[in-house]
Amino acid sequence: MKRIAVDMDGVLADVYSQFIAYHEKDSGIRLEIDKLDGLAEFEAFPHGSRHANTRGFFRTVPLVPGSRDILKRLNEKYEVFVVSAAMEFPTSLDDKREWLNEHFPFISWRQIVFCGSKEIVKAEIMIDDHLKNLDKFEGDTFLFSQPHNRRLQTSHRRVDSWEEIAELLLL
Amino acid sequence: MKRIAVDMDGVLADVYSQFIAYHEKDSGIRLEIDKLDGLAEFEAFPHGSRHANTRGFFRTVPLVPGSRDILKRLNEKYEVFVVSAAMEFPTSLDDKREWLNEHFPFISWRQIVFCGSKEIVKAEIMIDDHLKNLDKFEGDTFLFSQPHNRRLQTSHRRVDSWEEIAELLLL
Repeated sequence: MKRIAVDMDGVLADVYSQFIAYHEKDSGIRLEIDKLDGLAEFEAFPHGSRHANTRGFFRTVPLVPGSRDILKRLNEKYEVFVVSAAMEFPTSLDDKREWLNEHFPFISWRQIVFCGSKEIVKAEIMIDDHLKNLDKFEGDTFLFSQPHNRRLQTSHRRVDSWEEIAELLLL
Repeated sequence: MKRIAVDMDGVLADVYSQFIAYHEKDSGIRLEIDKLDGLAEFEAFPHGSRHANTRGFFRTVPLVPGSRDILKRLNEKYEVFVVSAAMEFPTSLDDKREWLNEHFPFISWRQIVFCGSKEIVKAEIMIDDHLKNLDKFEGDTFLFSQPHNRRLQTSHRRVDSWEEIAELLLL
């Protein structure tokens, strides 16, 4: 059974929608996601670091469409680990664990990894939206499209949706 | 630079002293550590699971003697990751992160891993007090002696103290 390491933010968790909502609450201005292509996350969201370090931010983040159903099916065919670089946001640990328990109850505590650097992850497949994580990974890599990576040229297999992941990994 | 995965509970954190203290606070009875050899942790401490799931338990746990100074020196010679199966105790995440920050400030957030199963850890060396973690690890293994493992026959290199780790890994 092949092991897949699946990222949370930008893959399972729709952090862009959450950053846009927090930005609007703060400033009254609603940013349009289509205009954020090519900007790093903290360029797109100047207060993003403060928001991501606010308790509750990761607890109420919406799901990326399709992630729950397709991860459930992957979980039957692969050894799935959900791997999040959560240590970067010290207040996020409880929020992220509770969020996973709520939305992905089929992922047991044994399958969750909160880390800093993902270099320590041993798996055959990695799905992530950040090149820094995929570039150092030795197995098969899937770059999940998000505005911050959309203009990047990359040798990783780009996927635009969970449906595309299903087509590639669930045949 | 070789990578070492260092366990927290029973290696950096002296959980036996903490279990004994919590047991005494609960029952008025002070257990003698010398009489706990060969008992699994939750046999030795019947209320251990409740105590370990109490907020504060892992925040105030004492250090295993020598762990701070020798880990600091290992951190200069190796790529150190502190890897804890913290997901087993859902309330422990914040406590463990704060405890590490206090006692091991030279360990950055990039070097911390909270997981369930340690099968996902990629490293050359693992120091742990549980056979279940060492048995599935492919690199060099060091079994840190604790009462629960003291009577077990094992092919892993047994170490009784941090001074012994220093002799083996810092020459």
